[in-house]
Amino acid sequence: MKAIIYRGPGTPSWDDAPDPEITDEADAIVRVDATTICGTDLHILAGDVPSVHPGRVIGHEAVGTVEQVGSSVRTVGEGDRVLVSCISSCGMCASCREGHFGQCRGGGGWVLGHTYNGTQAEFVRVPFADTSTYQLPAAIADEEALMLADVVPTGYEVGVLKSRVQPGEVVAVIGSGPVGLAAIMGARLFSPSHIVAIDPAERRLEAAKHFGADVTVNDSVASPLEVVRSLTDGRGADVVIEAVGLPETFELAVRLTRPGARLANVGVHGKPAAFHLEDQWTRDLTVTTGLVDTYSTPLLMRLLASRQIDTRKFVTHRFGLDEFSEAYDVFARAGDTGALKVVLSR
Amino acid sequence: MKAIIYRGPGTPSWDDAPDPEITDEADAIVRVDATTICGTDLHILAGDVPSVHPGRVIGHEAVGTVEQVGSSVRTVGEGDRVLVSCISSCGMCASCREGHFGQCRGGGGWVLGHTYNGTQAEFVRVPFADTSTYQLPAAIADEEALMLADVVPTGYEVGVLKSRVQPGEVVAVIGSGPVGLAAIMGARLFSPSHIVAIDPAERRLEAAKHFGADVTVNDSVASPLEVVRSLTDGRGADVVIEAVGLPETFELAVRLTRPGARLANVGVHGKPAAFHLEDQWTRDLTVTTGLVDTYSTPLLMRLLASRQIDTRKFVTHRFGLDEFSEAYDVFARAGDTGALKVVLSR
Amino acid sequence: MKAIIYRGPGTPSWDDAPDPEITDEADAIVRVDATTICGTDLHILAGDVPSVHPGRVIGHEAVGTVEQVGSSVRTVGEGDRVLVSCISSCGMCASCREGHFGQCRGGGGWVLGHTYNGTQAEFVRVPFADTSTYQLPAAIADEEALMLADVVPTGYEVGVLKSRVQPGEVVAVIGSGPVGLAAIMGARLFSPSHIVAIDPAERRLEAAKHFGADVTVNDSVASPLEVVRSLTDGRGADVVIEAVGLPETFELAVRLTRPGARLANVGVHGKPAAFHLEDQWTRDLTVTTGLVDTYSTPLLMRLLASRQIDTRKFVTHRFGLDEFSEAYDVFARAGDTGALKVVLSR
Amino acid sequence: MKAIIYRGPGTPSWDDAPDPEITDEADAIVRVDATTICGTDLHILAGDVPSVHPGRVIGHEAVGTVEQVGSSVRTVGEGDRVLVSCISSCGMCASCREGHFGQCRGGGGWVLGHTYNGTQAEFVRVPFADTSTYQLPAAIADEEALMLADVVPTGYEVGVLKSRVQPGEVVAVIGSGPVGLAAIMGARLFSPSHIVAIDPAERRLEAAKHFGADVTVNDSVASPLEVVRSLTDGRGADVVIEAVGLPETFELAVRLTRPGARLANVGVHGKPAAFHLEDQWTRDLTVTTGLVDTYSTPLLMRLLASRQIDTRKFVTHRFGLDEFSEAYDVFARAGDTGALKVVLSR
Repeated sequence: MKAIIYRGPGTPSWDDAPDPEITDEADAIVRVDATTICGTDLHILAGDVPSVHPGRVIGHEAVGTVEQVGSSVRTVGEGDRVLVSCISSCGMCASCREGHFGQCRGGGGWVLGHTYNGTQAEFVRVPFADTSTYQLPAAIADEEALMLADVVPTGYEVGVLKSRVQPGEVVAVIGSGPVGLAAIMGARLFSPSHIVAIDPAERRLEAAKHFGADVTVNDSVASPLEVVRSLTDGRGADVVIEAVGLPETFELAVRLTRPGARLANVGVHGKPAAFHLEDQWTRDLTVTTGLVDTYSTPLLMRLLASRQIDTRKFVTHRFGLDEFSEAYDVFARAGDTGALKVVLSR
Repeated sequence: MKAIIYRGPGTPSWDDAPDPEITDEADAIVRVDATTICGTDLHILAGDVPSVHPGRVIGHEAVGTVEQVGSSVRTVGEGDRVLVSCISSCGMCASCREGHFGQCRGGGGWVLGHTYNGTQAEFVRVPFADTSTYQLPAAIADEEALMLADVVPTGYEVGVLKSRVQPGEVVAVIGSGPVGLAAIMGARLFSPSHIVAIDPAERRLEAAKHFGADVTVNDSVASPLEVVRSLTDGRGADVVIEAVGLPETFELAVRLTRPGARLANVGVHGKPAAFHLEDQWTRDLTVTTGLVDTYSTPLLMRLLASRQIDTRKFVTHRFGLDEFSEAYDVFARAGDTGALKVVLSR
Repeated sequence: MKAIIYRGPGTPSWDDAPDPEITDEADAIVRVDATTICGTDLHILAGDVPSVHPGRVIGHEAVGTVEQVGSSVRTVGEGDRVLVSCISSCGMCASCREGHFGQCRGGGGWVLGHTYNGTQAEFVRVPFADTSTYQLPAAIADEEALMLADVVPTGYEVGVLKSRVQPGEVVAVIGSGPVGLAAIMGARLFSPSHIVAIDPAERRLEAAKHFGADVTVNDSVASPLEVVRSLTDGRGADVVIEAVGLPETFELAVRLTRPGARLANVGVHGKPAAFHLEDQWTRDLTVTTGLVDTYSTPLLMRLLASRQIDTRKFVTHRFGLDEFSEAYDVFARAGDTGALKVVLSR
Repeated sequence: MKAIIYRGPGTPSWDDAPDPEITDEADAIVRVDATTICGTDLHILAGDVPSVHPGRVIGHEAVGTVEQVGSSVRTVGEGDRVLVSCISSCGMCASCREGHFGQCRGGGGWVLGHTYNGTQAEFVRVPFADTSTYQLPAAIADEEALMLADVVPTGYEVGVLKSRVQPGEVVAVIGSGPVGLAAIMGARLFSPSHIVAIDPAERRLEAAKHFGADVTVNDSVASPLEVVRSLTDGRGADVVIEAVGLPETFELAVRLTRPGARLANVGVHGKPAAFHLEDQWTRDLTVTTGLVDTYSTPLLMRLLASRQIDTRKFVTHRFGLDEFSEAYDVFARAGDTGALKVVLSR
């Protein structure tokens, strides 16, 4: 088959790779019908993720059709149309039994395109298929479902649910990339009074409005702190979601809070941030971090089916699987191209 | 009357001060029967708390007898024996209505010995007396109750309740000063499997055992990380309570956590700490900060009355009110004297 | 002044009554600008509420203008436009300090039009004015605010918040009277997938649609159980809100639940219901009851100001204060008149 | 092998039965080293549980040794010493993924000794062995662990956790049979101020004291209502746990509550109870029901290993497996024999 293989820092190409095979009776082989690229994939290709070794097929998001299943797989079978989630779950370890699939200690967690071959390929072997794939109803299109493989549950679980957004609150979301937009979309389900999107790119702020932000701040020209204060009688936001991953955006996030606020970090960080405890120790803050567990996938599927969320809005560019080079180029230059999520389909 | 007055950085002395008077109809004048010294008072006297201006009577903890009440005070009256809490609460603002008395926006919060004259005096004017004092049953002795003015609710609310200690968990408490010990005492109520006390002073670790720690680590000679890992199959503590207030102890607190842990900061910090988000962004941490609200005071009073907590263990030294200089000296040299809480009684 | 006075079972009339006077320094005298009639008032007039004694001015909902305040009132003053809530709160007792204002043990709770003279009058004395009235911003009209005096917080707190409605859930609301409609409006804020309104009156089901129900069941001709099952793969509703108050509707509510569901009773009951524990003991049900606390009033005011809820939809009929007889007649014959809430204005 | 087989209403006998065999690759065959009798087994033998058909081997609690596992079983193997839980869990269905194993929709739930052959036998086939058995550390004795098969997690999850017992609260437990005692033991972990045990049998009240009750009421001679009121200033209990299963004990449970209390039903009911909503609709009650999920099993194992709970106290009588008739007789006449749990060992 063809696949995107990490061969050390460099440019991705759609190369020959061996077909995956069932190596464990809980595996499924899934034909990839649609896949996408995540910011993490760019980091991998840049050589920034040492746990990904050369030779690895990358990618951790897919919608596909089951080709074959191992002997112990019960709930999915050949021909089933499934979502392949970024998180695999053994279903048996203490973490999985408590719903913390992202922290799976039985061989799952984020493994696809990381320590296992991934989804940017014609076929993918999915471990623990019963607890790592989701049957798709016919009413949900491939590209709609594909957004549930990572970006939507990440924004919802790590951003919205951890920060416990409530009706009438003021929510500030720093960063209007795909995950920030997913957080905005998810926060809207709880009827906050305001969602303030903060980003230096006008194009992304325009997108943020389509996802549910009612206030936007271009922080290259305006002060998010002033905007948030003006909306909150000077107190600060009830909830802040950090979806960038830089020390300065985390530090901004802290400054935007009101006393008693919840700050959910969703951003992928490469460096420490300064936590100004000398100012914050009295302020009743709650700061959370987290990797997605994907426990919300069935719910998000239901919201998709009932048309309460529209995930097609993420898809800005569409390609064939054999156009991966172009797709990577468009995605990597998101500032110019306005790319949010690119979809590659069979 | 006599009182301890902040006159700029220097040594405290028991000086003449004007008698307090009712200036608002919600006030009470309380004769101080017992008071104590807090670490914060040392910071004030060192000139580290700029919001305390020279001329201020300091101190924010007392047990006393009501001498006089303003015309609108309903629930306490002359002759009543009361606890004067470190937190005053107007009872009417949005924060107070939600139980966040420490964040009172109606003129309360931490005001005694801060922006109002305080309790290290023969008499103190307590604002909002109905919602800032607590009637004491005869069965509770002055010095027992006095510990509920600040240290016990601080450890319990900001340390134990914010970190949601559960039966069977492993709790690490960094710092075995009075607030750390209060956190240990409070955590014990939830039957964790282990409470690990971490402090460089052997004397304090001895105290920690009396308050409920079953494991102690002298971190000047041993590695808390190794101890916690050995108790938790290498995973880390379920709960970490930081009760010191230094960048390095906060950073240690983060390192001691397991994925999914709760870290409650109780320490008073003067400098920022580094928050290693590059390691922590995936780890499902919850970090909280907070000022005590004292909403738990009625509960703690009940636990005292039923002898489920014993707050006399905090009291290491006893003085007369006119021995404040000596008391400050003993308290300031806690490393040598083994002082936890010193009580000054009429 | 004129007022509606309970004189034993019979028809209400707009009679002479003594003007209210400040009798406690925490009181306010409020001129009633707008008031309304509650189902409870009908029960009182029928003689069904023995705790209301003859001679009592009834009514517990008003918007008005402060005429005079007692000496200890701080936060409201002459000329202020305020909401007078159905729940008065002393602000000092253990219940009030925990936010359970409806269970006030200091002289508040539901007292207006019950054990104190009420709001169906030209003037009303409001006890504990600081903690029992709410300042109204100019942008909120009298009749909009008036709905927050009882019906909207009751539906929201006792129906929606106690049952913890979540995005994507199926919510069944039994009864489309004013409180049922308030529950529907409040549930919608949490983005359930379906809200099923159940009522025997078509006119009320029509109203239910305007308040946010997407499925309606006329239970005089169709089976709510079948409708709910068809929406939930045969499992039952995630949340059921009982807003009628009869044994049979409570028993229906239980039957409509899925295992693990939450059932919030909001209905005012006069008789016991059978609780079929022989069927339910294994089903992980949570059943709640409750009197409104009105802790959500500030939030609801914010939602009104941001136009996230529209409470004018409740108002079907408008009268002058001197048209009380007519208003009572229209409200009592709601089945014929389609009355939801009637507003009487100065 | 030998087993206790339900053959229609009658007396149990230790009869020949076919050896169980692996019929699904997720099965394990476990040699029963210790088992016990549950009140439910008496109901089955009396013919009161129609879902149990004649020919069924009964019993749903065991500690044993794995003899053989199906081809897909990963985490347990031949020779492992395991707890066989009363709840089997497929680990894959929506209920199991949310931790509601008792509501398993994939073929688990309470199946052993119900719809599958059970544990009162020399061998038992356990379905979904990976997610339905628990490895036992050597430090925990068979009979200690056996109590975790049903009674201890039932009292803890359905009684204590659902009712959210907190430090300083007053907890009333109606019924001092094994499950009531388990609730008492579990409640004690949260440091309530009082646990009031209510039962008509003095012997059981004596047991209740050993499990952690500090107040006992023989309700054949004294009024539980008066006792609870005297402990709570007339208000009622914060938490009531019903562990009997009769209409009158449920109705008593409701009467014992304070406003705002939580009432957890653990009792197995055969008839409806009257729920006096005419009194309770304003009282902010939370009433829960539930079947055990056994999600707390790993925690309870930890508490057993750390000696924070002592489950040997449940074991009043010990027998060999071939003495089942005698064991049933002793257990059925618990009033005379003082039997709590009887253990039958190989």
